[in-house]
Amino acid sequence: MNGNYNDVVVTSRVRLARNVDGLPYPYKLNDDRAALLARKVCDAVNKKHTDGSENDYALYRMESISDIDGGVLREKHLISADLLENRKYGAAVINGSETVSIMVGEEDHIREQCILQGFALPEAYKAVNGIDDDISKVLKFAYDPKLGYLTSCPTNIGTGMRASAMMFLPGLSVTRNLEQCVGAVARLNMTIRGVYGEGSESDGYLYQISNQKTLGVSEQEILASVQASIGHIAEAELRARDELYKQSETAIKDRILRSYGILCHAYTIDSKEFMKLLAMVKLGAYYGLIKVSDMQRLEKLVTDGQPANILNLSGKKDVGAEERDIFRAAYVSKTLKSICKR
Amino acid sequence: MNGNYNDVVVTSRVRLARNVDGLPYPYKLNDDRAALLARKVCDAVNKKHTDGSENDYALYRMESISDIDGGVLREKHLISADLLENRKYGAAVINGSETVSIMVGEEDHIREQCILQGFALPEAYKAVNGIDDDISKVLKFAYDPKLGYLTSCPTNIGTGMRASAMMFLPGLSVTRNLEQCVGAVARLNMTIRGVYGEGSESDGYLYQISNQKTLGVSEQEILASVQASIGHIAEAELRARDELYKQSETAIKDRILRSYGILCHAYTIDSKEFMKLLAMVKLGAYYGLIKVSDMQRLEKLVTDGQPANILNLSGKKDVGAEERDIFRAAYVSKTLKSICKR
Repeated sequence: MNGNYNDVVVTSRVRLARNVDGLPYPYKLNDDRAALLARKVCDAVNKKHTDGSENDYALYRMESISDIDGGVLREKHLISADLLENRKYGAAVINGSETVSIMVGEEDHIREQCILQGFALPEAYKAVNGIDDDISKVLKFAYDPKLGYLTSCPTNIGTGMRASAMMFLPGLSVTRNLEQCVGAVARLNMTIRGVYGEGSESDGYLYQISNQKTLGVSEQEILASVQASIGHIAEAELRARDELYKQSETAIKDRILRSYGILCHAYTIDSKEFMKLLAMVKLGAYYGLIKVSDMQRLEKLVTDGQPANILNLSGKKDVGAEERDIFRAAYVSKTLKSICKR
Repeated sequence: MNGNYNDVVVTSRVRLARNVDGLPYPYKLNDDRAALLARKVCDAVNKKHTDGSENDYALYRMESISDIDGGVLREKHLISADLLENRKYGAAVINGSETVSIMVGEEDHIREQCILQGFALPEAYKAVNGIDDDISKVLKFAYDPKLGYLTSCPTNIGTGMRASAMMFLPGLSVTRNLEQCVGAVARLNMTIRGVYGEGSESDGYLYQISNQKTLGVSEQEILASVQASIGHIAEAELRARDELYKQSETAIKDRILRSYGILCHAYTIDSKEFMKLLAMVKLGAYYGLIKVSDMQRLEKLVTDGQPANILNLSGKKDVGAEERDIFRAAYVSKTLKSICKR
């Protein structure tokens, strides 16, 4: 087993749910007060550093965002579908590198999150903690000495923290060992679910693992338990990939190389099939069947291929599904040819 | 419609059935007399020309031919399955360029055939006629002034001639217009059947069109009627290809380019799928979606990919189906990459 956790953990994410003391919960918040809150949050994080550099957070108001721009942010996991679809007065404050996103007026007043590439939960926690400190200097959070941070939904009360990882699990999925793994992590109070849907092959075998409990445990305890669960699943996944290769070498090689051939040559492709085939190319990169010069670019392609992102990349606004799928095929083929070699 | 008949007619073939006067029909022919007949035929055609050059016919006896070598000749349409499987004392006399083949001891004593690339029935007729003259100089054919040449099976009596073309008909097949075409040529006393099987997509959309009648018509009449039928079908096929492209451009482009991608990258492929995908690549070459520098090489690949031929090309004798399919995939990919460009 030569792989490491970064071959399995695509991104690590920590988010904190916060509410402002004395302010009605978002579903009761009116237009003006919501707008003011978003502005305050944005100003709080856009501070100048001692070296003279400045943070580059931008404010996106859901009221005025276009369908494509909103979809792009949602597909990048920077905002939730709930914020985009149901929170007219909601907003998001996002930094230039798109690692930090603060949703304002979603289920809670403020949801701070940091997403980092690979297996980097402690780093994500550190970053979001810094943001939390900055915001707490200008806003008084609703906090109960006994319960901890108060939230709109009781499942988030306490630390208000959710730590999660997006994991790429083709080995466990194809060898049908995922169920067993899910059972094991469920006993550790973890939740596992598909990132783009059911977590099936057409969703790229991407699963999100996160803690279920936020109350009665410390932030460090949550981090440690999620880390342990990720490690457990990552090791099982790496073993499953080895097993898969040993047991069905011809079949898996063929499936991977055909997937690559189709992605390099198809004239049109929808997002579900794209996800399914790209997952195989990623697995092929892991096995060394396809040499990839830039794994981050390959990983970014997953997001680039989503409907709103690909539309955005096409530079066109009013194209139908047929033209979009043709553009996706050409974009994917061009990208793969620039970073892959057999 | 920019295509010509050579885009549709893969090969043209004429064969003549002959029997030797006074000799029992093959199913009653014994070992020694059959062997002697084969030798006589081979010597008759291996004549020296006036310019000093010599014909290069070789004699293959079914009694001693290996499974692979026999399969190779059968897949190249140089001998029949009947000769290979049921005629222990049968033989074939084949020239070096594999355009002329004379089967000895099949259903008739002698079956002379010439196969040429493309739409070339008159040329094939001329060649086989020359062979027939050479053989008639050393053997007296069974001939009845009223009936013509006598044959083992009454359906061949008269001229003993069958003229045929192997046609590539993806347009008529995909647009489901083949039935209608078959009906039209059946009224002209033609037979149409799949070359490698049912003539389905997994057989590469290859169909053989040939005359049904041999009695009461002259050789020239047979040639003219088969020519007319081929022309009729070829024009319908070219129209169908145009129609297919106009009506389903995205779908047919996608199917062609994916087929090409799979053939260039698959790790293993069986012969049925190979035929199906290669047919799409040939159609892609016709549409100009794939640039092919050597169409004859592409056409030869159809035969190269058949089970015995690919085994022969692998240079190995005792390999199982799995290893053979892996070799086929690599051979096809390498060949396509050397002659195709998108």
